[in-house]
Parts: sequence; structure tokens; C-alpha cells
Amino acid sequence: MIEDQDKREPLSTEPYKGVRDFYPADWARLTATFNTIRTALELWGYEEYNASPLERAELYESKTSEEIVNEQTYTFEDRGQRRVTLRPEMTPTFARMVAGKRRELPMPLRWYSIPNLFRYERPQRGRLREHYQLNVDIAGIADAKADGEIIVIATEILKALGAKTEDFIVRVSSRPLLAAACAATGYDNEEAIRTYSRLLDKKSKMTLAEFEAALGPGRADPLKEIENPTDEKVREEKDKLMSLLEAFRARGLTNIVFDPEIVRGFDYYTGIVFEVYDTNPANPRAMFGGGRYDGLVGMFGGDPIPCIGFGMGDVVLMDFLETHGILPEIQTGPQVYVGTPSESDFFAAQSFAAQLRANGIRTLVNSSSKGLGDQIRDASRRNIPYFIAFGEQEASFGTIRMKTLATGDEQEISVEDVAARMSGS
Amino acid sequence: MIEDQDKREPLSTEPYKGVRDFYPADWARLTATFNTIRTALELWGYEEYNASPLERAELYESKTSEEIVNEQTYTFEDRGQRRVTLRPEMTPTFARMVAGKRRELPMPLRWYSIPNLFRYERPQRGRLREHYQLNVDIAGIADAKADGEIIVIATEILKALGAKTEDFIVRVSSRPLLAAACAATGYDNEEAIRTYSRLLDKKSKMTLAEFEAALGPGRADPLKEIENPTDEKVREEKDKLMSLLEAFRARGLTNIVFDPEIVRGFDYYTGIVFEVYDTNPANPRAMFGGGRYDGLVGMFGGDPIPCIGFGMGDVVLMDFLETHGILPEIQTGPQVYVGTPSESDFFAAQSFAAQLRANGIRTLVNSSSKGLGDQIRDASRRNIPYFIAFGEQEASFGTIRMKTLATGDEQEISVEDVAARMSGS
Repeated sequence: MIEDQDKREPLSTEPYKGVRDFYPADWARLTATFNTIRTALELWGYEEYNASPLERAELYESKTSEEIVNEQTYTFEDRGQRRVTLRPEMTPTFARMVAGKRRELPMPLRWYSIPNLFRYERPQRGRLREHYQLNVDIAGIADAKADGEIIVIATEILKALGAKTEDFIVRVSSRPLLAAACAATGYDNEEAIRTYSRLLDKKSKMTLAEFEAALGPGRADPLKEIENPTDEKVREEKDKLMSLLEAFRARGLTNIVFDPEIVRGFDYYTGIVFEVYDTNPANPRAMFGGGRYDGLVGMFGGDPIPCIGFGMGDVVLMDFLETHGILPEIQTGPQVYVGTPSESDFFAAQSFAAQLRANGIRTLVNSSSKGLGDQIRDASRRNIPYFIAFGEQEASFGTIRMKTLATGDEQEISVEDVAARMSGS
Repeated sequence: MIEDQDKREPLSTEPYKGVRDFYPADWARLTATFNTIRTALELWGYEEYNASPLERAELYESKTSEEIVNEQTYTFEDRGQRRVTLRPEMTPTFARMVAGKRRELPMPLRWYSIPNLFRYERPQRGRLREHYQLNVDIAGIADAKADGEIIVIATEILKALGAKTEDFIVRVSSRPLLAAACAATGYDNEEAIRTYSRLLDKKSKMTLAEFEAALGPGRADPLKEIENPTDEKVREEKDKLMSLLEAFRARGLTNIVFDPEIVRGFDYYTGIVFEVYDTNPANPRAMFGGGRYDGLVGMFGGDPIPCIGFGMGDVVLMDFLETHGILPEIQTGPQVYVGTPSESDFFAAQSFAAQLRANGIRTLVNSSSKGLGDQIRDASRRNIPYFIAFGEQEASFGTIRMKTLATGDEQEISVEDVAARMSGS
């Protein structure tokens, strides 16, 4: 029924522009990394949630400018004239779900998710149209306990992945501190504060002269007010932040520091904001970050619920692990290749394989009509560590020869001992 | 910076029409099920792959009618005038990825994936706009070894999930057999065979009179030819299928039977086709199925690569598990709640929690200013099995009282013994 296909041009094997195919080795590395993260978070009582990548467009339009929604998201109309967006970030979905069951959910709640996110942008290094992003959030704690916990969690995850304390540094600031400093230095409305915040967000990529030119002649820099507060409110907000940092130091966490230049892009932050930097001198860059957003859940009606969280993208994370030589070992492929001396041995080999599988050994059985030499080469090519030829002879004698492919060593052992020897490997 | 939001109408907390939110308990149940499937498949040497839900629309247009692509898929144009489709099935992506690395990939390959799939249709029971679907495929084996393995794998997965042999039955037929029987009874072109196949696919939902009326007056029914073959080619194809079924019986698999009425919807099948039915008399329905498709990879250029596989949707699967009382137990939430007698005990409690976590115990620490009674009620509400109050007193005495919330029992044990006692639980 597909004869008529033959006349067509061959289809392209390329994925859609800006997205990735995950072949088994790549996917295994990514899921091993995610699973380490899952275990670390669940030890702290965090629970995984998920949702569809399809969201009503209004979820983003109400808190971001329509321009951004139209230009940087995948937004389209469905056949029922509903405007649909492929989620560009997970926080609005998190807030929506928390708001949707606010009466039933025990607060505070600690949730995480590892969604794929979509952004319509030109593909470039580390910037894809789809990526995975770990999201970790706490809802229902307004005070510094949650601020402290979420930052500790960010560091715990990196440590669980094998990073050392000196491999990264957490830079923390506070939106209310920045707002107070702006107010104290003549930035007297929302728009002026927002414009300054955006400039500050880009400061690390500018020269000092460029920054001052952009600031405008004679304009005071709120950063100076933060450095040496003269205003009461600025002093108060700075003290609050300093006592949080003091608490980290008291717990021996010395790689968490104050950095007033940390802003973060989203408008919805209302408290502390932080970014985690790779300290690798060759590439000292921001890897991920987050902050407190106490107003988002209230947009769905009802009282606000204080929230704090962060998002960590898979591309930057895997780069970090690779740079520091701590990519996870992959252990999902078959552990043993059961070869068949002749085709008539297939069912005997399958019975033997069933025994191994019952003992938890990942087992591949040859299904080709090739000779044993070719089968051994096939096993090597697949990076399977052990090879056992198994036919009716082995079935009747009760002993097999197990070959370790990396060394070429062969050992004769009883069929019963195979499972024990493999599990120990 | 969100003050201006307050003036707006509250946002809806509903997800987009026809898709699901997965709150932690629901997601935990689904991932526990998927993880059991993963383990079962990996024991057979299957490896997980993944890809983006965004695909070039031509991937589907070339093998399905444009009508279906336009009416039953989410297809839209991106800002670069590329037509994009949210994948409605995984098989074309699998074929594309296999074709894309056909020179590097060791054949045969055994892959699986658990993608989310999208269909634009009216939401109804069991019919969502997005669902998850396990896909299991073998590429590179043309003979009955793969036909047999893929059907055994389908049954192994259900058994790994706790189903008994009598809970389901596999019904097998063959497209070449059906095509030969059609040819032998006067259906002399592709279109006539396709029309008959579609009618046969619906037969189980019709009365016999309706079926015969739809067949047309005086029209021969190819099913009768399959039952008692007169044609040489029909006999040959039927013998081939019978010997496959004989091989299952020889292995003691008695719930795999021949059913000539099995067709399957996709045009790309070229060999055996099968469907797995729930045998529950209250609801004896098809749960999932698959078949052989030897022509799909060749559509990307190069020689064809024979393939066989199946897809199993999450909604029907979870219904099956629920009906048969074998939904997985959920074990992802915290195992112990560490309460704090007073707020000043928070850091002592955190140090104690760190010890538990280091021993692999999922531990939640109270972060409220509530009294111990309220904390115990909070732990119960969260279904956390154990409660331990821990403050500076416990830290200095070295003993704690561990409360089992289900029974109210309390035991006094040393701090060192907690981990051992919890792991054993």
C-alpha cells in the first residue's frame, strides 16, 4: 500500500529547525542527569508535577507584553478560535496549577518539574527553539526560610551531580532593595525603575563608559546608594539581605555572595533574585537563576500566595558538567550479548536469556544468522561488556564461557553463576 | 512591579481544552508505571530515545492524506513560513531518526520512547488532545523473529505491570494475507482493497446485515477466502502466520490468537498486524496494537529497512490497570516529617534532616511557626508515614521519639537508629 510513495522525492531526515533529536546515548546521559536531580530533590520532600506544553495564550499575555508573546513564542489559533501558546517558561503554569487547587493543596508546597520549553528565536550556540528546564518552586512561605532553602537546593543539586563548592558561586540581590535605591536616587515611577533595571541587567556586557552614557548625563546611579545607603528604606532592605547571607555563612556556605548587579529578566519578581555562575576562569558565566514572586498566584483570583523558585536549562547544565568532567556514566544498554552458535540455538538462547532477565541482567540475544565471530564484533560495536555463546550444547552441559570484551578474557562458569557474576560487575 | 496586574480580571486556572494537568500524585502514578515499563524493556536490550514534538509538517503529509493532517493535527506556519506539526504519532519520527543515522547505527536496533502526542479532536472519554504513548520498535529484522519478539514484548510489559495472562489476549492478522484474499476475490486495485480494509476495521461495531449491506450486493467477502483458502498465495500467507502462532503455542503463550478481522488504521503496515484486548467481560476492548512496516524508512532515501513496532496510550493503559486493581503504589512523597518544638529549633532540625537525607530518607522539615499538634496534623494530611519532633533537646540527648502516624504508636530510639529503622520501612 505504499508503492505510490516510491515515486516521491525522499523526505529529509533533519529535525525541525532549532530542535534536537535525542539518540539513545544522548537521551540516556540527559535522563541520568535528570534522575540524579530527581533523587536529590525528593530527599528534601519535593514532588514532581507536569502539564501540557499547550497553554492558553492569555496566561502569558497578562504578565508579559503582547509584543514578546507575539515575537518570541509559538502562538497560534486553534480551529475553535482559541489562541494557544507553546509554553516558553513553566512559572505561569506552576502558578496556575497552585491557584487551581489552592483549597486542597497542603501549604507550603515544594514542587519540581522538568518540562520542555519553546521559544521562537534564531538558533545559536546554547539557544535552541526547544530546551528542557528544571523548575523548582516553593509556594506558601513568605519569609527568609524559603529564600534560604531554595538557594541551598540549587547548590545541593549541583553537588549531587558531582560539582565541587569551588566550581560555582551564587550571586544574590533583592528587587525591593533595587527599587528602594532607585526611589532614593530620583527614579520616581515604575517605568523609570524598569528602564534602569534593564540597563543594569546588561551592565556586565558593557564598558563602564558605555554604561554611564546609557544611564544619562548627571543621572545618579542607584548602585552607589546600595553600596553606601543614605536612605532608611534602602538600609532596611540591605540589612534584610545581609542577614540572609550571614545565615549561609553560619552554615559554612561561603560561595553565596551579595551582588547588587543581579536583576533577572522577568518583571514578576518581588523579593530576592539570584544567579548561579560557573567559576571556570575560561568561561565564567551565569548558568541559571531565580527569585521570589509573591504576586503571580494572586493573578488567578483570591489572596496572593508567596512563591520562590528557579529554573535551570539543560544545555547550560550539560555544558557545565562536561567542562568540569562530571558528565554521568551511562548504564542503560545491554550488559550481556547472548550469541547463538547456529540459528537452531535461538530458542535455547532465549530460555537462557529469560533466566538472566529474571535476575535483572539487561540481555540482548543475537537474532541474525551471522557466525559467532561477527556476533562478537557486533557486541563490541554496541559497547556491551560481556559475550556468552549459548546453544543446545551449553544447555545440556550446564556451563558457559563468558567473554569480557574489553580485555578478551574468557572464563568458564556454571549457568547458575552467571547472574551473580554479572550483578557484581 | 506587578501592581498594575491587580486591576485586571482574574486569569482562569483551567488548562487548555483537552489537555491534562498532572498534580504530583497523578504524575507519580504515571511515572511509576512508565518506569516499570522502562525496566522491562531495558532487560530485553531496548534503549530509550526521544525527539521534539515539533516536526516538519511534510513528515506526515507524505504518508497520510493532507485532509487528515489539516483536520486532525495541530499544524501551523512558523514565522519563517515553515509548516510545523505537533506530532500526532511517533512512528514517522522513529523512521526519520533511523534513516538519519542508518550508517552509524548497529542494526538491528531495539528502541522505545514515551512521547506526548497531539491530535486535534473533540475531547471525549479516553480521547484527549494530548496523551502519552509508549512506542516500541525493532528496525533491521525482516523475518518472524522480530514479529515474535515484538508481540512477546507487548505481553511482557503487561505482565511486568502486574497483569495476569488471562487479563488480556493478543489478536494477530497479516496485511499481505488480507491483500491476497482481496485479490483472490475480485478486489483488483489498491483503492478497492483500502475501502474493504476500512470497512473490515469497523466490522466489530456493525451488525452482520449492516456489514453485508456496506460490502455491496453480490460482493464476495475476502474473510471467507481467508477462512478456507482456495488461492495459492492466500494459503501461503496464511501458513506463514499459522507457523508464527504455532511458535507462540510451543512457548506456552496461549493468549495469542489469529483474528482475520484485525486491520489497524495506518496505511503503512506491510506485514503482521496485531491488537491487544482487555478480556474483562464488562469492557472487552482493544487497548493497543501495532504491526510491521517495512517501507517507511525507505521514504527517506536509500534501501528500505524492515521495521515492526507498537504504540500503547497512557489513558487506556491506566484504565486497564485500574479495572484490574493493579495501579502502582506511589512512593515518592516524603517518608518522614521533622517537626520543630519551637522556631529556634529550625537549624538543629535541619542538621538532623541532613543526616537522614545522607542515608537516603526523603525528609520534610517543618517551616511554619505552628505548634507540634498542628505539625502532626499537617504530616497526616500529606500522607507522610512518620513524624519526629527534633529540637535542641533531642540534639543534646541523642534520642528521639518516632511516631507512626497511621497507628499513633511512638517509639523512643537513638538518633543513629532512625535511618536504619526508616530504610526498613
